[in-house]
Amino acid sequence: MTLALIIHGGAGAATPPELQVGRRAGLSSAFETGWEILIQDGSALDAVVQATVVLEDHPLFNAGLGSCLTQDGTVEVDAALMDGTTFQAGAVGAVKNVKNAILLAQAVMETERHVFLVGEGAQRFARDQRFPETSSTDLVTQRQRQRWQTQRTKGEPGTVGTVALDRTGRLAVATSTGGVFYKQSGRVGDSAIIGAGTYADSTVGACSATGDGEAIIRATLARSVVELLRGGKDPLLAAQSALDILKRQTPVEARLGEAGLHEVGLIVLDPFGRTGFVYNTEAMSVAFRSDGRLVVQV
Amino acid sequence: MTLALIIHGGAGAATPPELQVGRRAGLSSAFETGWEILIQDGSALDAVVQATVVLEDHPLFNAGLGSCLTQDGTVEVDAALMDGTTFQAGAVGAVKNVKNAILLAQAVMETERHVFLVGEGAQRFARDQRFPETSSTDLVTQRQRQRWQTQRTKGEPGTVGTVALDRTGRLAVATSTGGVFYKQSGRVGDSAIIGAGTYADSTVGACSATGDGEAIIRATLARSVVELLRGGKDPLLAAQSALDILKRQTPVEARLGEAGLHEVGLIVLDPFGRTGFVYNTEAMSVAFRSDGRLVVQV
Repeated sequence: MTLALIIHGGAGAATPPELQVGRRAGLSSAFETGWEILIQDGSALDAVVQATVVLEDHPLFNAGLGSCLTQDGTVEVDAALMDGTTFQAGAVGAVKNVKNAILLAQAVMETERHVFLVGEGAQRFARDQRFPETSSTDLVTQRQRQRWQTQRTKGEPGTVGTVALDRTGRLAVATSTGGVFYKQSGRVGDSAIIGAGTYADSTVGACSATGDGEAIIRATLARSVVELLRGGKDPLLAAQSALDILKRQTPVEARLGEAGLHEVGLIVLDPFGRTGFVYNTEAMSVAFRSDGRLVVQV
Repeated sequence: MTLALIIHGGAGAATPPELQVGRRAGLSSAFETGWEILIQDGSALDAVVQATVVLEDHPLFNAGLGSCLTQDGTVEVDAALMDGTTFQAGAVGAVKNVKNAILLAQAVMETERHVFLVGEGAQRFARDQRFPETSSTDLVTQRQRQRWQTQRTKGEPGTVGTVALDRTGRLAVATSTGGVFYKQSGRVGDSAIIGAGTYADSTVGACSATGDGEAIIRATLARSVVELLRGGKDPLLAAQSALDILKRQTPVEARLGEAGLHEVGLIVLDPFGRTGFVYNTEAMSVAFRSDGRLVVQV
Protein backbone atom coordinates (compact mmCIF):
# COMPACT_ATOMS: atom_id res chain seq x y z
CA MET A 1 0.00 0.00 0.00
CA THR A 2 1.24 3.47 -0.92
CA LEU A 3 2.20 5.89 1.82
CA ALA A 4 1.80 9.61 1.33
CA LEU A 5 2.30 12.80 3.29
CA ILE A 6 2.12 16.45 2.38
CA ILE A 7 2.66 19.35 4.77
CA HIS A 8 2.25 23.07 4.35
CA GLY A 9 3.50 25.98 6.39
CA GLY A 10 1.11 28.61 5.06
CA ALA A 11 0.45 30.60 1.88
CA GLY A 12 1.04 34.33 1.51
CA ALA A 13 3.92 36.62 0.64
CA ALA A 14 7.25 35.08 -0.28
CA THR A 15 9.34 33.99 2.70
CA PRO A 16 11.95 36.70 3.40
CA PRO A 17 15.52 35.51 2.74
CA GLU A 18 16.48 35.59 6.43
CA LEU A 19 13.68 33.14 7.32
CA GLN A 20 14.15 30.68 4.47
CA VAL A 21 16.67 28.41 6.13
CA GLY A 22 14.63 28.24 9.33
CA ARG A 23 11.31 27.53 7.66
CA ARG A 24 12.86 24.95 5.39
CA ALA A 25 14.36 23.19 8.41
CA GLY A 26 11.02 23.26 10.23
CA LEU A 27 9.12 21.79 7.30
CA SER A 28 11.77 19.10 6.76
CA SER A 29 11.70 18.15 10.41
CA ALA A 30 7.90 18.03 10.49
CA PHE A 31 7.89 15.91 7.34
CA GLU A 32 10.49 13.48 8.66
CA THR A 33 8.56 13.13 11.91
CA GLY A 34 5.34 12.24 10.12
CA TRP A 35 7.05 10.06 7.55
CA GLU A 36 8.87 8.04 10.21
CA ILE A 37 5.51 7.22 11.78
CA LEU A 38 4.05 6.14 8.45
CA ILE A 39 6.94 3.87 7.46
CA GLN A 40 6.82 2.22 10.89
CA ASP A 41 3.19 1.33 10.16
CA GLY A 42 1.81 4.06 12.39
CA SER A 43 -1.54 5.63 11.64
CA ALA A 44 -2.16 8.57 9.34
CA LEU A 45 -3.74 10.29 12.31
CA ASP A 46 -0.60 9.99 14.43
CA ALA A 47 1.51 11.16 11.51
CA VAL A 48 -0.49 14.35 10.94
CA VAL A 49 -0.68 15.13 14.65
CA GLN A 50 3.04 14.68 15.34
CA ALA A 51 4.08 16.57 12.21
CA THR A 52 1.83 19.43 13.32
CA VAL A 53 3.34 19.44 16.80
CA VAL A 54 6.77 20.04 15.23
CA LEU A 55 5.46 23.11 13.41
CA GLU A 56 3.57 24.37 16.49
CA ASP A 57 6.82 24.13 18.47
CA HIS A 58 8.79 25.92 15.75
CA PRO A 59 8.89 29.73 16.15
CA LEU A 60 8.76 30.57 12.43
CA PHE A 61 5.27 29.27 11.66
CA ASN A 62 1.93 30.83 12.52
CA ALA A 63 0.79 28.12 14.95
CA GLY A 64 1.59 27.49 18.62
CA LEU A 65 4.88 29.27 19.43
CA GLY A 66 5.28 32.12 16.94
CA SER A 67 1.58 32.63 16.29
CA CYS A 68 0.32 35.94 14.93
CA LEU A 69 -0.99 38.20 17.69
CA THR A 70 -4.53 39.41 18.24
CA GLN A 71 -5.55 43.08 18.46
CA ASP A 72 -4.86 42.74 22.18
CA GLY A 73 -1.30 41.54 21.52
CA THR A 74 -2.07 38.04 22.79
CA VAL A 75 -2.01 34.58 21.22
CA GLU A 76 -5.24 32.63 20.62
CA VAL A 77 -4.92 29.40 18.71
CA ASP A 78 -7.31 27.21 16.69
CA ALA A 79 -6.80 23.63 15.49
CA ALA A 80 -8.71 20.65 14.15
CA LEU A 81 -8.08 17.10 13.02
CA MET A 82 -10.15 14.42 11.33
CA ASP A 83 -9.80 10.69 10.79
CA GLY A 84 -11.14 9.96 7.32
CA THR A 85 -12.03 6.36 8.15
CA THR A 86 -13.98 6.69 11.41
CA PHE A 87 -15.07 10.26 10.58
CA GLN A 88 -14.09 11.15 14.12
CA ALA A 89 -13.00 14.74 14.50
CA GLY A 90 -11.83 17.14 17.15
CA ALA A 91 -11.42 20.91 17.15
CA VAL A 92 -10.58 23.78 19.46
CA GLY A 93 -10.95 27.51 18.87
CA ALA A 94 -9.82 30.77 20.51
CA VAL A 95 -7.67 28.96 23.06
CA LYS A 96 -5.13 30.88 25.15
CA ASN A 97 -2.36 29.32 27.19
CA VAL A 98 -2.01 26.05 25.26
CA LYS A 99 0.90 25.64 22.87
CA ASN A 100 -0.08 22.45 21.09
CA ALA A 101 -3.64 23.11 20.06
CA ILE A 102 -3.59 20.04 17.82
CA LEU A 103 -3.03 17.79 20.85
CA LEU A 104 -5.92 19.48 22.61
CA ALA A 105 -8.13 18.93 19.54
CA GLN A 106 -7.07 15.28 19.58
CA ALA A 107 -8.01 15.02 23.26
CA VAL A 108 -11.45 16.49 22.46
CA MET A 109 -11.86 13.89 19.71
CA GLU A 110 -10.88 11.09 22.04
CA THR A 111 -13.46 12.02 24.65
CA GLU A 112 -15.98 11.12 21.92
CA ARG A 113 -18.67 13.34 23.42
CA HIS A 114 -18.08 16.65 21.69
CA VAL A 115 -16.23 17.62 18.51
CA PHE A 116 -15.59 21.29 19.15
CA LEU A 117 -14.64 23.22 22.29
CA VAL A 118 -13.81 26.92 22.39
CA GLY A 119 -12.48 29.63 24.65
CA GLU A 120 -12.62 29.27 28.42
CA GLY A 121 -14.42 25.93 28.24
CA ALA A 122 -11.65 24.52 26.06
CA GLN A 123 -9.07 25.88 28.49
CA ARG A 124 -10.83 24.28 31.43
CA PHE A 125 -10.84 20.99 29.50
CA ALA A 126 -7.08 21.44 28.89
CA ARG A 127 -6.49 21.84 32.63
CA ASP A 128 -8.62 18.76 33.36
CA GLN A 129 -6.53 16.83 30.83
CA ARG A 130 -3.33 18.08 32.51
CA PHE A 131 -2.09 19.98 29.49
CA PRO A 132 0.91 22.17 30.32
CA GLU A 133 -0.35 25.73 30.77
CA THR A 134 1.66 28.45 29.07
CA SER A 135 1.72 32.04 30.32
CA SER A 136 0.26 34.80 28.18
CA THR A 137 3.71 35.64 26.82
CA ASP A 138 5.23 32.16 26.38
CA LEU A 139 3.94 31.82 22.81
CA VAL A 140 4.79 35.38 21.77
CA THR A 141 8.01 35.56 19.77
CA GLN A 142 9.98 38.77 19.47
CA ARG A 143 9.32 38.77 15.76
CA GLN A 144 5.54 38.63 16.20
CA ARG A 145 5.68 41.26 18.95
CA GLN A 146 7.49 43.60 16.55
CA ARG A 147 4.99 42.97 13.78
CA TRP A 148 2.20 43.77 16.22
CA GLN A 149 3.87 46.95 17.45
CA THR A 150 4.39 48.19 13.90
CA GLN A 151 1.06 46.78 12.66
CA ARG A 152 2.87 45.08 9.83
CA THR A 153 -0.03 43.00 8.60
CA LYS A 154 1.38 41.83 5.31
CA GLY A 155 3.35 38.79 4.49
CA GLU A 156 2.54 36.28 7.16
CA PRO A 157 1.52 32.80 6.07
CA GLY A 158 -1.75 31.72 7.61
CA THR A 159 -1.69 28.23 9.00
CA VAL A 160 0.08 24.91 9.11
CA GLY A 161 -1.60 21.80 7.76
CA THR A 162 -0.83 18.16 7.07
CA VAL A 163 -2.59 15.31 5.26
CA ALA A 164 -1.42 11.70 5.31
CA LEU A 165 -2.23 8.25 3.95
CA ASP A 166 -1.09 5.22 5.95
CA ARG A 167 -0.44 1.62 4.97
CA THR A 168 -3.96 0.51 5.85
CA GLY A 169 -5.45 3.09 3.46
CA ARG A 170 -6.58 5.54 6.10
CA LEU A 171 -6.49 9.26 5.34
CA ALA A 172 -6.18 11.90 8.05
CA VAL A 173 -5.80 15.68 8.26
CA ALA A 174 -4.61 18.16 10.87
CA THR A 175 -4.62 21.96 10.78
CA SER A 176 -3.32 24.41 13.38
CA THR A 177 -3.03 28.20 13.45
CA GLY A 178 -2.60 31.38 15.41
CA GLY A 179 -5.16 32.89 13.06
CA VAL A 180 -5.13 36.08 11.10
CA PHE A 181 -2.89 38.92 12.24
CA TYR A 182 -4.56 41.49 14.53
CA LYS A 183 -7.76 39.46 14.81
CA GLN A 184 -10.40 40.31 17.38
CA SER A 185 -10.22 38.20 20.50
CA GLY A 186 -12.62 35.28 20.10
CA ARG A 187 -12.35 35.14 16.31
CA VAL A 188 -12.26 31.56 15.02
CA GLY A 189 -11.14 30.95 11.45
CA ASP A 190 -11.43 28.09 9.01
CA SER A 191 -8.73 25.89 10.56
CA ALA A 192 -10.92 24.80 13.47
CA ILE A 193 -13.98 24.23 11.31
CA ILE A 194 -14.54 20.73 9.98
CA GLY A 195 -15.38 21.16 6.30
CA ALA A 196 -13.83 24.62 6.01
CA GLY A 197 -10.08 24.34 6.67
CA THR A 198 -10.00 20.66 7.55
CA TYR A 199 -11.69 17.59 6.03
CA ALA A 200 -10.92 13.91 5.38
CA ASP A 201 -12.87 10.98 3.98
CA SER A 202 -10.69 7.91 3.34
CA THR A 203 -12.85 6.82 0.41
CA VAL A 204 -12.42 10.14 -1.40
CA GLY A 205 -9.65 12.39 -0.13
CA ALA A 206 -8.32 14.79 2.48
CA CYS A 207 -7.64 18.52 2.39
CA SER A 208 -6.17 21.23 4.59
CA ALA A 209 -6.68 24.87 3.62
CA THR A 210 -4.94 28.12 4.53
CA GLY A 211 -5.46 31.76 3.68
CA ASP A 212 -8.44 34.06 3.97
CA GLY A 213 -10.25 32.10 6.69
CA GLU A 214 -13.54 33.91 6.41
CA ALA A 215 -13.79 33.15 2.68
CA ILE A 216 -12.79 29.54 3.27
CA ILE A 217 -15.56 29.17 5.87
CA ARG A 218 -18.21 30.62 3.57
CA ALA A 219 -17.15 28.26 0.77
CA THR A 220 -16.79 25.18 3.06
CA LEU A 221 -13.66 24.81 1.01
CA ALA A 222 -11.96 21.63 2.31
CA ARG A 223 -15.19 19.71 2.03
CA SER A 224 -15.75 21.10 -1.47
CA VAL A 225 -12.29 19.99 -2.59
CA VAL A 226 -12.83 16.48 -1.26
CA GLU A 227 -16.19 16.38 -3.03
CA LEU A 228 -14.43 17.32 -6.28
CA LEU A 229 -12.12 14.28 -5.89
CA ARG A 230 -15.06 11.92 -6.14
CA GLY A 231 -14.74 9.85 -9.29
CA GLY A 232 -10.96 9.83 -9.16
CA LYS A 233 -10.27 13.38 -10.29
CA ASP A 234 -6.65 14.37 -9.92
CA PRO A 235 -5.99 16.18 -6.61
CA LEU A 236 -4.29 19.08 -8.35
CA LEU A 237 -7.24 19.60 -10.69
CA ALA A 238 -9.69 19.32 -7.80
CA ALA A 239 -7.79 21.95 -5.85
CA GLN A 240 -7.70 24.24 -8.86
CA SER A 241 -11.47 23.86 -9.34
CA ALA A 242 -11.92 24.82 -5.71
CA LEU A 243 -10.28 28.15 -6.41
CA ASP A 244 -13.09 28.75 -8.92
CA ILE A 245 -15.65 28.26 -6.13
CA LEU A 246 -13.98 31.04 -4.21
CA LYS A 247 -13.86 33.22 -7.28
CA ARG A 248 -17.59 32.84 -7.80
CA GLN A 249 -18.10 34.13 -4.26
CA THR A 250 -15.87 37.16 -4.82
CA PRO A 251 -17.62 40.41 -5.80
CA VAL A 252 -17.76 40.87 -9.56
CA GLU A 253 -15.59 44.01 -9.53
CA ALA A 254 -12.78 42.09 -7.86
CA ARG A 255 -13.18 39.12 -10.23
CA LEU A 256 -12.95 41.32 -13.30
CA GLY A 257 -9.90 43.16 -12.03
CA GLU A 258 -8.30 39.94 -10.78
CA ALA A 259 -7.52 41.96 -7.65
CA GLY A 260 -9.13 41.60 -4.25
CA LEU A 261 -9.56 37.87 -4.75
CA HIS A 262 -9.64 35.77 -1.63
CA GLU A 263 -6.15 34.44 -1.00
CA VAL A 264 -5.87 30.72 -0.29
CA GLY A 265 -3.61 27.74 -0.43
CA LEU A 266 -4.66 24.09 -0.35
CA ILE A 267 -2.98 20.73 0.08
CA VAL A 268 -4.87 17.68 -1.13
CA LEU A 269 -4.34 13.92 -0.99
CA ASP A 270 -6.41 11.12 -2.47
CA PRO A 271 -6.75 7.44 -1.49
CA PHE A 272 -4.26 6.47 -4.22
CA GLY A 273 -1.57 8.57 -2.56
CA ARG A 274 -1.63 11.29 -5.19
CA THR A 275 -0.90 14.72 -3.71
CA GLY A 276 -1.59 18.20 -4.97
CA PHE A 277 -1.24 21.76 -3.78
CA VAL A 278 -2.38 25.05 -5.22
CA TYR A 279 -2.23 28.68 -4.08
CA ASN A 280 -3.28 31.99 -5.55
CA THR A 281 -0.84 33.88 -3.33
CA GLU A 282 2.73 34.92 -4.01
CA ALA A 283 4.14 31.83 -2.32
CA MET A 284 3.27 28.74 -0.31
CA SER A 285 5.53 26.65 1.92
CA VAL A 286 5.17 22.90 1.34
CA ALA A 287 7.00 19.64 1.95
CA PHE A 288 6.18 16.35 0.22
CA ARG A 289 7.83 13.34 -1.38
CA SER A 290 8.23 12.94 -5.09
CA ASP A 291 9.95 9.92 -6.67
CA GLY A 292 11.21 8.87 -3.26
CA ARG A 293 12.82 12.23 -2.56
CA LEU A 294 11.79 14.94 -0.09
CA VAL A 295 10.86 18.21 -1.78
CA VAL A 296 10.69 21.33 0.38
CA GLN A 297 9.60 24.70 -0.98
CA VAL A 298 9.36 27.86 1.13
CA MET B 1 -41.59 35.66 -7.89
CA THR B 2 -42.49 32.92 -5.43
CA LEU B 3 -42.06 33.58 -1.72
CA ALA B 4 -41.27 30.74 0.63
CA LEU B 5 -40.54 30.24 4.30
CA ILE B 6 -40.09 27.16 6.45
CA ILE B 7 -39.30 27.17 10.16
CA HIS B 8 -38.46 24.40 12.56
CA GLY B 9 -38.46 24.25 16.33
CA GLY B 10 -36.28 21.17 16.72
CA ALA B 11 -36.41 17.41 16.15
CA GLY B 12 -36.49 14.82 18.93
CA ALA B 13 -39.09 13.15 21.12
CA ALA B 14 -42.74 13.98 20.57
CA THR B 15 -43.82 17.27 22.16
CA PRO B 16 -45.56 16.47 25.49
CA PRO B 17 -49.30 17.32 25.44
CA GLU B 18 -48.92 20.18 27.93
CA LEU B 19 -46.42 21.98 25.66
CA GLN B 20 -48.22 21.51 22.37
CA VAL B 21 -50.36 24.64 22.47
CA GLY B 22 -47.41 26.81 23.48
CA ARG B 23 -45.01 25.46 20.89
CA ARG B 24 -47.64 25.68 18.18
CA ALA B 25 -48.28 29.33 19.09
CA GLY B 26 -44.55 30.08 19.05
CA LEU B 27 -44.02 28.55 15.63
CA SER B 28 -47.10 30.31 14.20
CA SER B 29 -45.94 33.64 15.58
CA ALA B 30 -42.41 33.15 14.23
CA PHE B 31 -43.80 32.16 10.84
CA GLU B 32 -46.16 35.15 10.66
CA THR B 33 -43.31 37.50 11.60
CA GLY B 34 -41.11 36.17 8.82
CA TRP B 35 -43.92 35.96 6.29
CA GLU B 36 -45.03 39.54 6.92
CA ILE B 37 -41.49 40.69 6.08
CA LEU B 38 -41.46 38.66 2.86
CA ILE B 39 -44.85 39.87 1.57
CA GLN B 40 -43.83 43.46 2.26
CA ASP B 41 -40.85 42.89 -0.07
CA GLY B 42 -38.39 42.57 2.80
CA SER B 43 -35.28 40.48 2.40
CA ALA B 44 -35.02 36.75 3.07
CA LEU B 45 -32.26 37.60 5.52
CA ASP B 46 -34.51 39.91 7.56
CA ALA B 47 -37.26 37.29 7.50
CA VAL B 48 -35.09 34.50 8.87
CA VAL B 49 -33.51 36.73 11.51
CA GLN B 50 -36.79 38.15 12.82
CA ALA B 51 -38.52 34.74 12.82
CA THR B 52 -35.59 33.37 14.81
CA VAL B 53 -35.80 36.21 17.34
CA VAL B 54 -39.42 35.22 18.06
CA LEU B 55 -38.34 31.66 18.86
CA GLU B 56 -35.33 32.84 20.91
CA ASP B 57 -37.70 35.00 22.97
CA HIS B 58 -40.18 32.13 23.44
CA PRO B 59 -39.50 29.98 26.56
CA LEU B 60 -40.51 26.65 25.01
CA PHE B 61 -37.76 26.36 22.40
CA ASN B 62 -34.12 25.44 22.91
CA ALA B 63 -32.68 28.82 21.89
CA GLY B 64 -32.29 32.10 23.79
CA LEU B 65 -34.75 32.09 26.71
CA GLY B 66 -35.53 28.46 27.54
CA SER B 67 -32.22 27.04 26.29
CA CYS B 68 -30.98 23.68 27.55
CA LEU B 69 -28.46 24.06 30.38
CA THR B 70 -24.80 23.12 30.38
CA GLN B 71 -23.20 20.76 32.90
CA ASP B 72 -22.62 23.88 35.00
CA GLY B 73 -26.32 24.74 34.95
CA THR B 74 -25.74 27.81 32.80
CA VAL B 75 -26.90 28.87 29.34
CA GLU B 76 -24.43 29.17 26.44
CA VAL B 77 -25.89 29.89 23.04
CA ASP B 78 -24.73 29.38 19.44
CA ALA B 79 -26.18 30.87 16.25
CA ALA B 80 -25.36 31.49 12.60
CA LEU B 81 -26.90 33.04 9.53
CA MET B 82 -25.99 33.17 5.86
CA ASP B 83 -27.11 35.22 2.89
CA GLY B 84 -27.19 32.88 -0.11
CA THR B 85 -26.65 35.68 -2.63
CA THR B 86 -23.69 37.59 -1.18
CA PHE B 87 -22.37 34.49 0.64
CA GLN B 88 -21.93 36.72 3.67
CA ALA B 89 -22.24 34.86 6.92
CA GLY B 90 -22.04 35.50 10.64
CA ALA B 91 -21.79 33.13 13.58
CA VAL B 92 -21.32 33.13 17.34
CA GLY B 93 -20.58 30.24 19.67
CA ALA B 94 -20.53 29.54 23.43
CA VAL B 95 -21.94 32.97 24.26
CA LYS B 96 -23.25 33.70 27.76
CA ASN B 97 -25.37 36.69 28.70
CA VAL B 98 -26.89 37.41 25.28
CA LYS B 99 -30.48 36.37 24.60
CA ASN B 100 -30.69 36.92 20.87
CA ALA B 101 -27.63 35.13 19.54
CA ILE B 102 -28.95 35.47 16.00
CA LEU B 103 -28.80 39.28 16.25
CA LEU B 104 -25.23 39.02 17.52
CA ALA B 105 -24.34 36.72 14.60
CA GLN B 106 -25.90 39.28 12.26
CA ALA B 107 -23.81 42.04 13.85
CA VAL B 108 -20.67 39.93 13.32
CA MET B 109 -21.64 39.50 9.67
CA GLU B 110 -22.21 43.21 9.25
CA THR B 111 -18.78 44.13 10.55
CA GLU B 112 -17.52 42.26 7.45
CA ARG B 113 -14.15 41.52 9.04
CA HIS B 114 -14.76 38.18 10.73
CA VAL B 115 -17.40 35.49 10.27
CA PHE B 116 -17.19 33.70 13.60
CA LEU B 117 -16.68 34.96 17.15
CA VAL B 118 -16.83 32.78 20.25
CA GLY B 119 -16.86 32.94 24.04
CA GLU B 120 -15.49 35.95 25.86
CA GLY B 121 -14.41 37.68 22.66
CA ALA B 122 -17.96 37.42 21.30
CA GLN B 123 -19.30 38.78 24.58
CA ARG B 124 -16.92 41.72 24.45
CA PHE B 125 -18.10 42.39 20.90
CA ALA B 126 -21.70 42.26 22.17
CA ARG B 127 -20.92 44.89 24.80
CA ASP B 128 -19.20 47.08 22.21
CA GLN B 129 -22.29 46.78 20.02
CA ARG B 130 -24.50 47.76 22.99
CA PHE B 131 -26.37 44.46 23.12
CA PRO B 132 -28.51 44.15 26.26
CA GLU B 133 -26.61 41.99 28.74
CA THR B 134 -28.62 39.30 30.50
CA SER B 135 -27.65 37.94 33.92
CA SER B 136 -26.57 34.32 34.25
CA THR B 137 -30.11 33.31 35.29
CA ASP B 138 -32.23 35.46 32.95
CA LEU B 139 -32.30 32.82 30.21
CA VAL B 140 -32.88 29.87 32.56
CA THR B 141 -36.51 28.80 32.66
CA GLN B 142 -37.93 26.84 35.58
CA ARG B 143 -38.59 23.96 33.24
CA GLN B 144 -34.97 23.75 32.08
CA ARG B 145 -33.72 24.14 35.67
CA GLN B 146 -35.83 21.12 36.67
CA ARG B 147 -34.57 19.05 33.76
CA TRP B 148 -31.02 19.88 34.78
CA GLN B 149 -31.63 19.04 38.44
CA THR B 150 -33.14 15.68 37.52
CA GLN B 151 -30.70 15.09 34.63
CA ARG B 152 -33.64 14.39 32.36
CA THR B 153 -31.71 14.34 29.11
CA LYS B 154 -34.29 12.88 26.82
CA GLY B 155 -36.92 14.55 24.77
CA GLU B 156 -35.64 18.03 24.14
CA PRO B 157 -35.62 19.29 20.57
CA GLY B 158 -32.25 20.60 19.52
CA THR B 159 -32.39 23.89 17.73
CA VAL B 160 -34.53 26.40 15.92
CA GLY B 161 -33.96 27.12 12.25
CA THR B 162 -35.47 29.10 9.40
CA VAL B 163 -34.93 29.29 5.64
CA ALA B 164 -36.57 31.84 3.36
CA LEU B 165 -36.85 32.92 -0.28
CA ASP B 166 -37.71 36.54 -1.01
CA ARG B 167 -39.23 38.26 -4.03
CA THR B 168 -35.85 39.05 -5.56
CA GLY B 169 -34.86 35.37 -5.49
CA ARG B 170 -32.51 35.56 -2.55
CA LEU B 171 -32.27 32.61 -0.17
CA ALA B 172 -31.21 32.98 3.45
CA VAL B 173 -30.88 30.77 6.52
CA ALA B 174 -30.70 31.32 10.29
CA THR B 175 -30.09 28.79 13.06
CA SER B 176 -30.01 29.36 16.83
CA THR B 177 -29.65 27.01 19.79
CA GLY B 178 -28.86 26.51 23.44
CA GLY B 179 -27.06 23.36 22.34
CA VAL B 180 -27.25 19.83 23.61
CA PHE B 181 -28.45 19.22 27.16
CA TYR B 182 -25.70 19.01 29.81
CA LYS B 183 -22.97 20.00 27.37
CA GLN B 184 -19.50 20.94 28.56
CA SER B 185 -18.96 24.67 28.83
CA GLY B 186 -17.35 25.87 25.61
CA ARG B 187 -18.90 23.18 23.43
CA VAL B 188 -20.00 24.52 20.05
CA GLY B 189 -22.37 22.44 17.95
CA ASP B 190 -23.39 22.41 14.33
CA SER B 191 -25.72 25.43 14.47
CA ALA B 192 -22.87 27.95 14.56
CA ILE B 193 -20.87 26.21 11.86
CA ILE B 194 -21.36 27.38 8.31
CA GLY B 195 -21.78 24.22 6.23
CA ALA B 196 -22.76 22.01 9.20
CA GLY B 197 -26.06 23.30 10.63
CA THR B 198 -26.41 26.35 8.41
CA TYR B 199 -25.87 26.92 4.68
CA ALA B 200 -27.39 28.93 1.82
CA ASP B 201 -26.54 29.45 -1.84
CA SER B 202 -29.26 31.32 -3.76
CA THR B 203 -28.45 29.47 -6.97
CA VAL B 204 -28.94 26.04 -5.40
CA GLY B 205 -30.72 26.01 -2.04
CA ALA B 206 -30.67 26.61 1.70
CA CYS B 207 -30.72 24.25 4.66
CA SER B 208 -30.89 24.38 8.45
CA ALA B 209 -30.17 21.23 10.44
CA THR B 210 -30.92 20.10 13.98
CA GLY B 211 -30.16 17.03 16.05
CA ASP B 212 -26.92 15.28 16.91
CA GLY B 213 -24.65 18.28 16.39
CA GLU B 214 -21.38 16.36 16.46
CA ALA B 215 -22.55 14.03 13.67
CA ILE B 216 -23.85 16.98 11.65
CA ILE B 217 -20.44 18.71 11.92
CA ARG B 218 -18.55 15.61 10.77
CA ALA B 219 -20.87 15.23 7.78
CA THR B 220 -20.92 18.98 6.91
CA LEU B 221 -24.59 18.20 6.52
CA ALA B 222 -26.24 21.48 5.47
CA ARG B 223 -23.64 21.99 2.77
CA SER B 224 -24.09 18.39 1.62
CA VAL B 225 -27.86 18.83 1.33
CA VAL B 226 -27.46 22.01 -0.69
CA GLU B 227 -24.98 20.19 -2.93
CA LEU B 228 -27.57 17.45 -3.51
CA LEU B 229 -30.06 20.07 -4.75
CA ARG B 230 -27.81 20.92 -7.68
CA GLY B 231 -29.53 20.00 -10.93
CA GLY B 232 -33.00 20.71 -9.55
CA LYS B 233 -33.44 17.67 -7.32
CA ASP B 234 -36.52 17.90 -5.12
CA PRO B 235 -35.68 19.32 -1.65
CA LEU B 236 -37.40 16.44 0.10
CA LEU B 237 -35.38 13.86 -1.85
CA ALA B 238 -32.17 15.80 -1.25
CA ALA B 239 -32.83 15.87 2.47
CA GLN B 240 -33.56 12.14 2.49
CA SER B 241 -30.32 11.43 0.65
CA ALA B 242 -28.49 13.46 3.29
CA LEU B 243 -29.72 11.05 5.94
CA ASP B 244 -27.89 8.33 4.00
CA ILE B 245 -24.65 10.30 4.34
CA LEU B 246 -25.09 10.23 8.10
CA LYS B 247 -25.89 6.54 8.01
CA ARG B 248 -22.67 5.79 6.17
CA GLN B 249 -20.77 7.53 8.98
CA THR B 250 -22.53 5.52 11.69
CA PRO B 251 -20.73 2.41 12.95
CA VAL B 252 -21.80 -0.73 11.07
CA GLU B 253 -23.31 -2.40 14.15
CA ALA B 254 -25.63 0.55 14.65
CA ARG B 255 -26.53 0.64 10.95
CA LEU B 256 -27.44 -3.03 10.87
CA GLY B 257 -29.56 -2.80 14.01
CA GLU B 258 -31.12 0.49 12.90
CA ALA B 259 -30.44 1.62 16.47
CA GLY B 260 -27.88 4.16 17.58
CA LEU B 261 -28.27 6.12 14.38
CA HIS B 262 -27.45 9.80 14.58
CA GLU B 263 -30.68 11.70 15.12
CA VAL B 264 -31.28 14.67 12.85
CA GLY B 265 -33.92 16.87 11.32
CA LEU B 266 -33.51 19.10 8.28
CA ILE B 267 -35.44 21.87 6.59
CA VAL B 268 -34.60 22.62 2.97
CA LEU B 269 -35.66 25.24 0.44
CA ASP B 270 -34.72 25.60 -3.21
CA PRO B 271 -34.64 28.65 -5.52
CA PHE B 272 -38.06 27.66 -6.96
CA GLY B 273 -39.65 27.98 -3.52
CA ARG B 274 -40.03 24.23 -2.99
CA THR B 275 -39.65 23.26 0.65
CA GLY B 276 -38.88 19.94 2.28
CA PHE B 277 -38.23 18.61 5.74
CA VAL B 278 -37.13 15.20 7.00
CA TYR B 279 -36.29 13.74 10.40
CA ASN B 280 -35.27 10.34 11.68
CA THR B 281 -36.47 11.18 15.20
CA GLU B 282 -39.85 10.61 16.80
CA ALA B 283 -41.06 14.07 15.92
CA MET B 284 -40.09 17.43 14.48
CA SER B 285 -41.76 20.80 14.95
CA VAL B 286 -42.22 22.74 11.71
CA ALA B 287 -44.23 25.60 10.23
CA PHE B 288 -44.59 26.28 6.52
CA ARG B 289 -47.16 27.30 3.92
CA SER B 290 -48.85 24.85 1.62
CA ASP B 291 -51.45 25.89 -0.94
CA GLY B 292 -51.66 29.32 0.64
CA ARG B 293 -52.37 27.97 4.11
CA LEU B 294 -50.12 27.89 7.20
CA VAL B 295 -49.32 24.36 8.34
CA VAL B 296 -47.94 23.94 11.86
CA GLN B 297 -46.84 20.56 13.24
CA VAL B 298 -45.38 20.06 16.71
